[in-house]
Amino acid sequence: MPVPLNKQWFIGVDGGGTSTRGVLSDREGQIRAVVRGDSSNMNSRPLPEVIHTLKKVCQDLLDQVGGTSEQVQSVFLGLAGAGRPRERDLLLEGLQEAYPGRVQVDNDAVTALYAGTWGRPGMVLIAGTGSIAYGVSTTGERYRVGGWGWLLGDEGSGFILGQEALRAILRAFDGRGKETQLTSLVFSLYGIQEATEVVSFIHASENPRKLMAEVGPLVLQAAEQGDEVALEIVQQAAQDLVELVVACSRVMVESLPIVLAGGLLGEGTLLREKVMNQLSDLGYSVEKPSFPPSVGALIMALQTGGVTLDRAVKQNMTESWALLGEGVQS
Amino acid sequence: MPVPLNKQWFIGVDGGGTSTRGVLSDREGQIRAVVRGDSSNMNSRPLPEVIHTLKKVCQDLLDQVGGTSEQVQSVFLGLAGAGRPRERDLLLEGLQEAYPGRVQVDNDAVTALYAGTWGRPGMVLIAGTGSIAYGVSTTGERYRVGGWGWLLGDEGSGFILGQEALRAILRAFDGRGKETQLTSLVFSLYGIQEATEVVSFIHASENPRKLMAEVGPLVLQAAEQGDEVALEIVQQAAQDLVELVVACSRVMVESLPIVLAGGLLGEGTLLREKVMNQLSDLGYSVEKPSFPPSVGALIMALQTGGVTLDRAVKQNMTESWALLGEGVQS
Repeated sequence: MPVPLNKQWFIGVDGGGTSTRGVLSDREGQIRAVVRGDSSNMNSRPLPEVIHTLKKVCQDLLDQVGGTSEQVQSVFLGLAGAGRPRERDLLLEGLQEAYPGRVQVDNDAVTALYAGTWGRPGMVLIAGTGSIAYGVSTTGERYRVGGWGWLLGDEGSGFILGQEALRAILRAFDGRGKETQLTSLVFSLYGIQEATEVVSFIHASENPRKLMAEVGPLVLQAAEQGDEVALEIVQQAAQDLVELVVACSRVMVESLPIVLAGGLLGEGTLLREKVMNQLSDLGYSVEKPSFPPSVGALIMALQTGGVTLDRAVKQNMTESWALLGEGVQS
Repeated sequence: MPVPLNKQWFIGVDGGGTSTRGVLSDREGQIRAVVRGDSSNMNSRPLPEVIHTLKKVCQDLLDQVGGTSEQVQSVFLGLAGAGRPRERDLLLEGLQEAYPGRVQVDNDAVTALYAGTWGRPGMVLIAGTGSIAYGVSTTGERYRVGGWGWLLGDEGSGFILGQEALRAILRAFDGRGKETQLTSLVFSLYGIQEATEVVSFIHASENPRKLMAEVGPLVLQAAEQGDEVALEIVQQAAQDLVELVVACSRVMVESLPIVLAGGLLGEGTLLREKVMNQLSDLGYSVEKPSFPPSVGALIMALQTGGVTLDRAVKQNMTESWALLGEGVQS
């Protein structure tokens, strides 16, 4: 029995390291449910747990509209670390059970991009804990620059901002660098009293990457208050991020809109401002992302489910997201 | 019964992350035994094992001359990570048993310094896997700059050279940076075929620090062959190392000789050459270190055992080391 049009559901999921966000809409683009679940990072959690979390997010969405899995036309997952074919296959296998032939998965950079371009080609620059520039060309080819992880890349990311801040604190302490407000900001954050404690605190930690990335936002804060050392760090980060975009657009050999994503490039941050200015000086057109990556995934779910994103659908998505999404997701 | 003068032994030990080196001399400074044992790094091995290793090194030295522990006048240990009072006390307790009241321990920077100054005040700049500048003033005060570990400091070290090299390889790969010979050198070292394998190789490793530091010497090699990217990395490292010395001498407020130590600043390396040139341009006097840190520890053992390092003793040490030590220790 065919599913009536007004009972057809489309699901977009953004699986991140901290949490998993899901959105559900009907085929008119009306977003009807928004949920948040545990982390679904395949690099840090066992695959069965990740599959369980993803299934639960989908089921919770359906529960909110009283729907069934048969009514789901399309599920699109944007997942960090979804690049490896073997893990992706296992993941799909785990989810196909409920939604056979109707699940797709891609990496989370793609959904961040599509959240800003309504599923059209373009480039996305992401700066959160890590950083990367990712492009999809008009012919569907994929390109990446950066994003090589905290030990080897992630230039301009929260991790690097944090690492540079901690280095600056120690340099000020041992007489190599200028005094900086970062010292007292980090002391409060870590609950310590002197610079050398930073060293034992970080080196003894099970997760130094996380502790260091937590300092990232403090660097933006200090820079906004005019701290010279922090300003230099932010300036360098902006330059490194712009370099990612420039290198990506050079290999793509076409001029495409750019979407900024990730917490450090959020509305109103100094890093965003500096990156925006530099990109516009270089002649790039920067799009204001309309949505978070979960809605980017929904856009893909609608497209792969055969829905044309016409003006009416777009308007429905925008309006329903404004009503339902912002509070839950931010 | 007092020990006859020609049966009095003095022991110096340099405890490192890779191995422990010990030397034994008589009170004339004649080095009579040289041994090498396991690692004695208190940060990476359990304390009982470290104590066992150190005891064994001392005993092996005594066995070589048919000596007994009663004949040992003084043992001086230079150990990485010996700064923490609690661990130092436990260590001393473990060793006092055999040589009561005749054991002393200090950090390995001090023994590296004294190996170049015959136990006199000065500054030592060390660049191996890590880096640090360490000074002892004429009034006995200690100063340090840098050496904050691989995640937060170690500027100009083998780790940083390696990390910059790996970053450069990935930057060349994704279109941000210049091509470099480092790529093929690292591929051979790691046994990999493409740049992206560097990322999984390092991030999946139990000991990324070690793997990355192993690339350090390749950077010097590539730079010597004229590779531009490698040259820039070495140039930056030299500048960072000189900055450590400048900051250290600024807080010490006196002009003291500088000793260069550690594998990356060994005889004939490009990094040594660049650091020497910059230091001499800045008016510093650089001493050629006469010995490795184990002999620096022996110098301290002789001094604390009441031996005056006169011309004859110094000559004995130099000549006996040339005969016995170089081959074993290098």
